[in-house]
Amino acid sequence: MNLRRVTLEEVEAIAVGAGILGTGGGGSTYLGSVRLARELRQRGTGCRIIDADELPDDALVCAISGMGAPTVGIEKLANGNEMVKAIHALESHLDRSMDALVIGEIGGSNGLRPLVAGLQLDLPVVDGDPMGRAFPELQMDTFSIGGVPASPMALSDAHGNVVVFDQIDSPLRAEQYARQLTIEMGGTALLIMPVMSGKQVREHIIRGTLSLARRLGQTVLRSRRNNVDPAESVAVEANGSLLFRGKVVDLIRQTTQGFTRGIVKLAAFQQPDDQLEIQFQNENLIARRNGRVVCTVPDLISMLTLEDGEPIGTEALRYGLRVAVLGMPAPKQLKSPAALEVVGPAAFGYADVPFQPLPGDLL
Amino acid sequence: MNLRRVTLEEVEAIAVGAGILGTGGGGSTYLGSVRLARELRQRGTGCRIIDADELPDDALVCAISGMGAPTVGIEKLANGNEMVKAIHALESHLDRSMDALVIGEIGGSNGLRPLVAGLQLDLPVVDGDPMGRAFPELQMDTFSIGGVPASPMALSDAHGNVVVFDQIDSPLRAEQYARQLTIEMGGTALLIMPVMSGKQVREHIIRGTLSLARRLGQTVLRSRRNNVDPAESVAVEANGSLLFRGKVVDLIRQTTQGFTRGIVKLAAFQQPDDQLEIQFQNENLIARRNGRVVCTVPDLISMLTLEDGEPIGTEALRYGLRVAVLGMPAPKQLKSPAALEVVGPAAFGYADVPFQPLPGDLL
Repeated sequence: MNLRRVTLEEVEAIAVGAGILGTGGGGSTYLGSVRLARELRQRGTGCRIIDADELPDDALVCAISGMGAPTVGIEKLANGNEMVKAIHALESHLDRSMDALVIGEIGGSNGLRPLVAGLQLDLPVVDGDPMGRAFPELQMDTFSIGGVPASPMALSDAHGNVVVFDQIDSPLRAEQYARQLTIEMGGTALLIMPVMSGKQVREHIIRGTLSLARRLGQTVLRSRRNNVDPAESVAVEANGSLLFRGKVVDLIRQTTQGFTRGIVKLAAFQQPDDQLEIQFQNENLIARRNGRVVCTVPDLISMLTLEDGEPIGTEALRYGLRVAVLGMPAPKQLKSPAALEVVGPAAFGYADVPFQPLPGDLL
Repeated sequence: MNLRRVTLEEVEAIAVGAGILGTGGGGSTYLGSVRLARELRQRGTGCRIIDADELPDDALVCAISGMGAPTVGIEKLANGNEMVKAIHALESHLDRSMDALVIGEIGGSNGLRPLVAGLQLDLPVVDGDPMGRAFPELQMDTFSIGGVPASPMALSDAHGNVVVFDQIDSPLRAEQYARQLTIEMGGTALLIMPVMSGKQVREHIIRGTLSLARRLGQTVLRSRRNNVDPAESVAVEANGSLLFRGKVVDLIRQTTQGFTRGIVKLAAFQQPDDQLEIQFQNENLIARRNGRVVCTVPDLISMLTLEDGEPIGTEALRYGLRVAVLGMPAPKQLKSPAALEVVGPAAFGYADVPFQPLPGDLL
C-alpha cells in the first residue's frame, strides 16, 4: 500500500530504504532523518504524500535535492532554511506559488529533505522521483532525459545566499554552472530543479519510490527483529541479488571537483583472494569481481553492514568494515537507449564497459 | 561641457579616454568601440546621457560591466545580447522596468558597453561610474563601499545563459560566486550589478567620468593632429604626471583564477639600468622604479604607446613595446579610509606597500 502521510513512525524505515537506494550517495541518511524527525516533532503533524496522478495538468511543481560531495555533507551542516528560501525566490521570480513538491533524488538524505520542505511550506510531496536511486550529476534524471528544461532553477547555501538560474541552455550546462557554484559555496548546496507542470511530472516521474524506500527499510527493520539476514531480505524485496560479502581491505577516496570519488576493495571472509572492487563518484558505479564486471550503473550497487543491514554511504566507508553488497536492477525508465546515454557506464567515463542489465526491474 | 548624447563622432575619443582610465584593464576598447559604432550606425541615433542629478529618488537603475580576464575577452567575443537578456531577467525578477543605466566601470571597453545597452533598450546612461577607472573585483566600487547591496544581480554569457543572484550576503561573496561562474562561463561574462534607486546612485556615483573619458581621448587625438606629446598632454588634463618612458624588456603574464595577472618590466631608452616594474591583476596595481614604489592603486597607472598615445591593456603588452607610463591621482571618493580598505594596496595582497597618494584628485 502506498504512503499517504509520513509521520514520526515512518522516519526510520524511509531513512534506511533511502540509504539503500542511495547506492553510496545522496548524503548521510542519519543527518537527514534527524532533521526530518525534528521537523515532524515541532510541527506535530505528518507530511502529506500524493500520487503523481493526483496532480492537475497545470499544477506548479518543483523538485528538491542536495548538490555536492557526501564527504562534505557530513561535516558542513545545512542551515535548515535553504529549501524555503530557494523555493520562495523561485516563486517570486515566477510570480506564482508552488502547488506540490517532488523528491529530486530518492537516494540518501535527498530522499528525506523534500519531506522537511513539505512540512515547512505546508505542501504535499509526490510519491516518486526521477532517479529511483541517486546519481552524482544533475542532468542524470528522467525529467532532464525527457526534455524538461533545467531553468528556471535555484541554488542556495547555508549562508542564506540564493541564486536563480533564469535561462540555461541545457541540463549539462546547468550541471557545470551549478557544480562550480556549489564548490564555491563550500562543497554542498541545495538545488531546486526542475520547475514543472503537473503534466510534466506525470509524464516523466518514476512512481512510488518513496513507498519503495519505506518498504525496503521496513524489510531491514523486520529482518533485524527476526534475526533474518537483512541483505538477503532486501535483495528479494528489490528484485535484486547478493553480489558479495566481505570486508573493506582497501579504500582510495578523494573529495575533488565537487565530488567524492574513489575505489573500494572488498575481500571475501574465508577466501581473501576473492575480491570485489567498486568504483564510485558519490555513488557506486561499477563493481568488478576478480576483474570481471558484475554490475554497472544504472543498476544499483549498495553496501549494507553485514550484521544489521545499515546502508553505507561512500562518505562512511572505512577499512575493516564488514559489508554485504547488493545488486538491484534499475527502474525501467533508466534503461531506454536515450536514458543510457545519460546514465550508462559511458556517461561516467567507462566507455569500455557495456551495460549488462541485471534481470528484472526495480519497480 | 558635459556630454548629453553620444554619437558616432564621439566614439573614438571615448574609447581612447576609457582605455587610459582602464589602467590596463576593463577590456579591449578596440572591440568595445567597434561594437558601439556598429550599434550607433544601425540605430541611426545617439545614446542619451544624463547627469546623476536628473534621476528621481525612486528611479530604478542598474550598473553594467563585463567580468573576467582581458586576455580572454579579446579571444572569446561577446554575443551582443548578453546585456539585454540579463537586464530583462532582472526586470522580470523585480517585476519593474529600469529607468536608466549606469556605467559599472568607466575603464576599458566597460566604459563603452553600457552605451550599447542604452541604445538597445532605449534608456539613458548616467554620466559617471563607481570607480573612475577599472578595478579587477566587483566589490571594488563606491556603490559597494557605500553599502549598496550586491543582490539582486545578474550574470549572463555568450551562450544566452542568465543567472540571477537573488540574495547574496556581501559584495565579497558576490565576487567569489560570480568569479567562479565567470570562469565556468569560459572566462568572461556580463554583470548587471548593483540595482539601485536614483537616490543611491546620486549618493555614491563618481560624477562626470564619461565626460572625463571623452576629454582625455580628445586630448590624445588633438595631440596626434598637432604633433604634441600625447602622454604629457594627458598628464596635464588628468592632474597626473609622467612616471616613465621606456620599452618592455620583460613580461610575465598568466590567465589564472579568472584574472590576467603578471609583472611587466620597462627599461629607459638611453639608460637600460633605469627600470620601472609594474605588477598587475587585470589592472596595473603597483609601479616600482628601480625598486622604489612610485605609484600604487587606487591611483591610476596607465601605459600609452609612446608615439600616438594609444592606451595599452595588460592583455596587449608585448616585448619591445615602447610606452609612456602615466600616474594619475584617484578620484577623491576612492581615498577615504573605508574606500582604501577595499581598493588600497593591502586589498590586493600588498600589505607592506602603503598608499602614497599622488597630489591632487582625478576629478
